[in-house]
Amino acid sequence: MQRLHDYILQDGRVLSSHVLKVDSFLNHQVQPALIQEIGQQFAQAFHDKDVDKVITVEASGIHIAYATALALGVPFVYAKKKRAVTQSDDVYQASVMSYTRNETVEITVSKSFLLAGEKVLVVDDILANGNAVVGLLDILDAAGADVVGLGVVIEKRFQEGRAKIQSRNVPILPLASIESMEDGRVVFAKELAAESETKE
Amino acid sequence: MQRLHDYILQDGRVLSSHVLKVDSFLNHQVQPALIQEIGQQFAQAFHDKDVDKVITVEASGIHIAYATALALGVPFVYAKKKRAVTQSDDVYQASVMSYTRNETVEITVSKSFLLAGEKVLVVDDILANGNAVVGLLDILDAAGADVVGLGVVIEKRFQEGRAKIQSRNVPILPLASIESMEDGRVVFAKELAAESETKE
Repeated sequence: MQRLHDYILQDGRVLSSHVLKVDSFLNHQVQPALIQEIGQQFAQAFHDKDVDKVITVEASGIHIAYATALALGVPFVYAKKKRAVTQSDDVYQASVMSYTRNETVEITVSKSFLLAGEKVLVVDDILANGNAVVGLLDILDAAGADVVGLGVVIEKRFQEGRAKIQSRNVPILPLASIESMEDGRVVFAKELAAESETKE
Repeated sequence: MQRLHDYILQDGRVLSSHVLKVDSFLNHQVQPALIQEIGQQFAQAFHDKDVDKVITVEASGIHIAYATALALGVPFVYAKKKRAVTQSDDVYQASVMSYTRNETVEITVSKSFLLAGEKVLVVDDILANGNAVVGLLDILDAAGADVVGLGVVIEKRFQEGRAKIQSRNVPILPLASIESMEDGRVVFAKELAAESETKE
């Protein structure tokens, strides 16, 4: 997605070989026209999957989920985060290790809002270690929902998230796939592909 | 806003005279077409205020802020919540007592994303005790921003939020204003007004 690539290159800040700040347009300050296009891209990619519901985790997935759900014409659900491990009968719950916050949080979804057999599209802003998405997949499995795919805005392909999700047989659609961030430079997976083609 | 009133009456659950659950359409499971209309209503109400930016607090204000910002054609910012009180030089910060969670959280906004003189519209899902919004107003004052108003989806008029915001000279636009929730029944402020008119 060209506009997203442009934003990443122009406004993203590579803080280390693993940390990319995109808080000027994606997950603190947000550019709505970009998010609208992201939602339309996800909706277009999964429009033939009879999606019943879109799901994400609070907070930075919420606008992505809304834009996607609006374009698909279905509701969305965001899993809530809390610390208190008070197991409740009426929620599905999963423990997620957050490296950013260096703590384990519980993510919960009310059982009322996930039904067995529902076709659910998972979306999130960034796929890095994949822990939050794996927690969502555990919740969706517990509910007996049918996961049609995962849409992520930015995938850091060099981290372990992709492998974890693929081992669950969930198709991944990244709108920007970052191969590496060495020396402060973002290299997209497509660029690498193009380079190798040029060399052949 | 008729559609919102209908959702509250049909799908809202009055758990006590002070607690209204709207998690089936507004702040856990979300109905996107409703949110889109909410955003359009706020945008229309404040379209002549030259709004530069919309601001809210994570998590349940994010989709409201996005819908409003998209309709206005401006960026939005969501304040982040964290527990660790690690004061940082590059963020504006305010302490907010959360009655729902029974704890004090720090809300923060990066200084890069709030500039002196910017005209900012504050939005949120529910105005009850008003603590989160007051925290945002403190942050906006610290930044030297110009607050053009507060748009709230649902106002519980019998709690202290309205008075706190009005004492800051910020105009409030609620799309649904609840006068009372005694005996499990939601009474909108408009209904009361209509009743008193009828009696005259």
